[in-house]
Amino acid sequence: MIIEKVNSPGDLKQMSMNELNDLACEMRDLIIKKVNTTGGHLGPNLGIIETTIAMHYVFESPKDKIIYDVSHQCYPHKILTGRKECFTDCDKYYKYSGYTAPEESCHDIYKVGHTSTSVSLALGTAKARDLKNEKGNVIALIGDGSLSGGEAYEGFNNAACFNGNLIIVVNDNDMSIAQNQGGLYKNLKLLRETAGKSQLNFFKTLGFDYIYVDEGNNIEEMINVFKKVKDINHPIVVHVKTQKGHGLKCAIENKEMFHWIMPSTLDDENNLNVTNSNIQNIQTYNSITTDFILNKAKDDKTVVAITPATPGAYGFNYEFRQTLGEQYIDVGIAEEHAVAYASSLAKSGAKPFLAVLSSFIQRTYDQLSQDLCLNNSPVSLLIYWGAITNADATHAGVFDIPLISNIPNMVYLAPSTKEEYIAMLEYAYKQKNHPLAIRVPFGEIISSGKPDNTDYSILNKFKVTHEGENLAIIGIGNFYHLGEKVAKILKEKHNINATIINPRFITGVDVELLENLKVNHNLVITLEDGVIDGGFGEKITRFYGNSNMKVLNFGAKKEFTDRVPLDELYSRYHLTCDDIIKDVLKFISVCV
Amino acid sequence: MIIEKVNSPGDLKQMSMNELNDLACEMRDLIIKKVNTTGGHLGPNLGIIETTIAMHYVFESPKDKIIYDVSHQCYPHKILTGRKECFTDCDKYYKYSGYTAPEESCHDIYKVGHTSTSVSLALGTAKARDLKNEKGNVIALIGDGSLSGGEAYEGFNNAACFNGNLIIVVNDNDMSIAQNQGGLYKNLKLLRETAGKSQLNFFKTLGFDYIYVDEGNNIEEMINVFKKVKDINHPIVVHVKTQKGHGLKCAIENKEMFHWIMPSTLDDENNLNVTNSNIQNIQTYNSITTDFILNKAKDDKTVVAITPATPGAYGFNYEFRQTLGEQYIDVGIAEEHAVAYASSLAKSGAKPFLAVLSSFIQRTYDQLSQDLCLNNSPVSLLIYWGAITNADATHAGVFDIPLISNIPNMVYLAPSTKEEYIAMLEYAYKQKNHPLAIRVPFGEIISSGKPDNTDYSILNKFKVTHEGENLAIIGIGNFYHLGEKVAKILKEKHNINATIINPRFITGVDVELLENLKVNHNLVITLEDGVIDGGFGEKITRFYGNSNMKVLNFGAKKEFTDRVPLDELYSRYHLTCDDIIKDVLKFISVCV
Repeated sequence: MIIEKVNSPGDLKQMSMNELNDLACEMRDLIIKKVNTTGGHLGPNLGIIETTIAMHYVFESPKDKIIYDVSHQCYPHKILTGRKECFTDCDKYYKYSGYTAPEESCHDIYKVGHTSTSVSLALGTAKARDLKNEKGNVIALIGDGSLSGGEAYEGFNNAACFNGNLIIVVNDNDMSIAQNQGGLYKNLKLLRETAGKSQLNFFKTLGFDYIYVDEGNNIEEMINVFKKVKDINHPIVVHVKTQKGHGLKCAIENKEMFHWIMPSTLDDENNLNVTNSNIQNIQTYNSITTDFILNKAKDDKTVVAITPATPGAYGFNYEFRQTLGEQYIDVGIAEEHAVAYASSLAKSGAKPFLAVLSSFIQRTYDQLSQDLCLNNSPVSLLIYWGAITNADATHAGVFDIPLISNIPNMVYLAPSTKEEYIAMLEYAYKQKNHPLAIRVPFGEIISSGKPDNTDYSILNKFKVTHEGENLAIIGIGNFYHLGEKVAKILKEKHNINATIINPRFITGVDVELLENLKVNHNLVITLEDGVIDGGFGEKITRFYGNSNMKVLNFGAKKEFTDRVPLDELYSRYHLTCDDIIKDVLKFISVCV
Repeated sequence: MIIEKVNSPGDLKQMSMNELNDLACEMRDLIIKKVNTTGGHLGPNLGIIETTIAMHYVFESPKDKIIYDVSHQCYPHKILTGRKECFTDCDKYYKYSGYTAPEESCHDIYKVGHTSTSVSLALGTAKARDLKNEKGNVIALIGDGSLSGGEAYEGFNNAACFNGNLIIVVNDNDMSIAQNQGGLYKNLKLLRETAGKSQLNFFKTLGFDYIYVDEGNNIEEMINVFKKVKDINHPIVVHVKTQKGHGLKCAIENKEMFHWIMPSTLDDENNLNVTNSNIQNIQTYNSITTDFILNKAKDDKTVVAITPATPGAYGFNYEFRQTLGEQYIDVGIAEEHAVAYASSLAKSGAKPFLAVLSSFIQRTYDQLSQDLCLNNSPVSLLIYWGAITNADATHAGVFDIPLISNIPNMVYLAPSTKEEYIAMLEYAYKQKNHPLAIRVPFGEIISSGKPDNTDYSILNKFKVTHEGENLAIIGIGNFYHLGEKVAKILKEKHNINATIINPRFITGVDVELLENLKVNHNLVITLEDGVIDGGFGEKITRFYGNSNMKVLNFGAKKEFTDRVPLDELYSRYHLTCDDIIKDVLKFISVCV
């Protein structure tokens, strides 16, 4: 195996073209095998193997700095930069991150996982190099999908005027996570079809020097191009056509489905044949949402489902999109636009449901504040994957509560069951009074078995689900059930009859209810599936700041966590039933 | 006066070209007189008078919807849409907002004040129109300066593929607040110089239909153009060259200085002659900052001052920029890029100071989180105008603490005096351990008279400035002095010897100090010049949640306020000494 010879990028430099091509084949096999075992990004990595080999063949990383956009296409880079064990040794499959991570290797310059940042990061890197009178190339590798994000454009606009070496490799595989969206992509198509010769050239209008490469999956061609641009003294865009999923038929034929796969996807014949469809017979929070939207959209042509480039995450599959037609809008990776667009739709009398992952709603604080909440526009935001998880640091879902809930006018709801979720969706559809966000429950469906008839227009009305005394447990959203479990154990093992409260509203407190608790309670605990700082629990604590009520806030610590097992996080944050009960008992013994 | 005939846009339609031109002259005089009395945006409004008249002559507002970007150029629009009294009657000079405000008029579609939002807002408006099978034109009016913002690009990229009427008027006066920045502006220049005929055309690369108009300050020409595009069935960019400050010599000659002026600026001969310079002999927090940066930059070529398009706000004047040369970077209106760029500069060993207004740092939450804090990059962020003020709702400075302080790794400092500020700047310059933000004090300089020798590398160390008992007052940043005043009155009038604490650190709590307070205190109050929700005070309250300590948090309510007098806000929020003392005495009487 030629790969045995590769322990660092320097090892490539002596290799023949044949050896490099063999290496690409071996890397492809390793990536397919590993990703099919662990799950992960498949298509993007299969498409970039040859370009990555050529890049490391020509440039001198880490003196030359290669900066990845999103970095979910960095697997080949990891193999070549001393971390191949993560692909050759199944015991070490989980050792390294799926994104660039400076703590792993000096060849990884930044920790990234959100899109559209590489040009800005590369520009600062290049500028610092020049200020320090150092040498070396700075290379940004950015996919076509990332080009729809505003931060990328801001970076390009500034980089175009930079007075020094800066190489921007646009890895154009004609695909975002789903299909690309927007006028730019017609221009990229035109450039591909004219081999970069069209007069209409987005990059040239910004002032960039520009080279087009038609065969990004050809190592030799890429080596020649990189040799040409190496040590260039000004910014240049190297527009490279690659094939997403290159070398794997099913991944080429169904680029969206094989962008990111679950473990063992390739082992199931069905997966290899379906056309972009997620067949589901069991009800999930995703299917509840899509069923709801489809149902409303049928009779109300102003209902619109919007997503910023991640439809698969919420089950907005092929059938859903086809059925909705003009009422389905993928704006591409453009979260800021998505919020402003939804706001104006709602303000103009339409009924937009904007679905976003917790981690990506972070890209829109100002749009939530100015475009949406200041205009008090009745958009329905659906926030997915808001929870403490074992996710990569870049994809944590713990910050949405502080982010969203401290903006005026916003009403943020957290359902704990499918019935509540459905009732909140109905309320979202009907109401016209304020921006509304729903934190879509994370995990498997939980059913109360009875319809929720709550009138959610009565804001900040918490619900007492069990009346007890001394201790009140306020568990919000996903963690309402944790509260129920804690209460059950307290009752059974410690004869403590705790009051249980399902607040449903994240954005405010139920003054009357909290006031009443003072009568026969002396401890309130809050359980929150997210970071405590700036979150829901602190609002409860502040309410009781002037009283004798004691309050304990449970939730995540203010920290970035990177693929930490959930058990470990729960234990660290005292979020197991045992830990919560221990903490509670300390106070009960003091208070009673 | 022809203007007497104009009470709504419909009144224009009968007028002759001569009358319309006379109207423009009258409007120009009114705007100059009013803005010179009240202060406000001058240059942008003088430049857009003719285009606005033509727009309202041709289109049928409010059936046709005109959507302003930033909307600081909406004064002519306000005059023509029933609000001329705000310019003709000096008693009503303050009656209306300086931005579009739907609560004032049905001709104002959205409440805006931040840039780069109009295309997204217009696209949603147009889409809703079509979903509802309604008619009418949707027009976005966006300045060239706003085009550098990522949200604008996201909007353009999506709008280019829209299948219906959408007219985007690009008001190109070759100027942002300061000079434009970025490659796009070379393209706009080329388009102006070739009367829109160049093959290199940013808008066409995105797929837009496109018209160029060379005389945006000519009503007749603009009317002809708008007649051409009215009721068009697809998106079109109308690229209009206008002159910022048109009709006022000093405003044409010094576009940056006359973008926004203070009251009576035109009355002072000196203002009319200087070249882009703010001469200051008195020390301010701005001058401290510029002096500090200039001083460091002289000996350390890696020191860089960065601003996203608002250099004037912090005194980054002509001399400052010239002196710094390559060490000064205005990225244009591109806050997201600014943060990512600064992060990579710092990570690569340079020393960036990024200056941003509190209201505009809102545009960067994800960049603060991902590009900056996740990479633990030692950037120095200087946050200006963070305070409760009588500002427009769009420019409130009360949300930066919840926004910034709940992000892991960030250290956010709040100096209360110039000596602390200088010591923090020194620490910012030296340290390499974490992202650092400083909330630049708001208002006039306050001096302690003695240097601050604090070692700020010892994080979250609060400072007791006076040891008392029973009551502790924690006043952060601007409000430390309010705390001192309250303590003084409590001492003098009520014989209460309160402990006074200057926390300096917003992002964490001093566990040891807070713990010690429990010994001989039973009430802690926090004073915070910003919104309470998600802010600093709640962290203190949470700390004491499990104890007998009572805590009261003082600060702004979670709400948008629009030009509310500061006195009124302080009174509303119980932030006067009297109110604070009243609230405190209630508890002291209970506790003691």
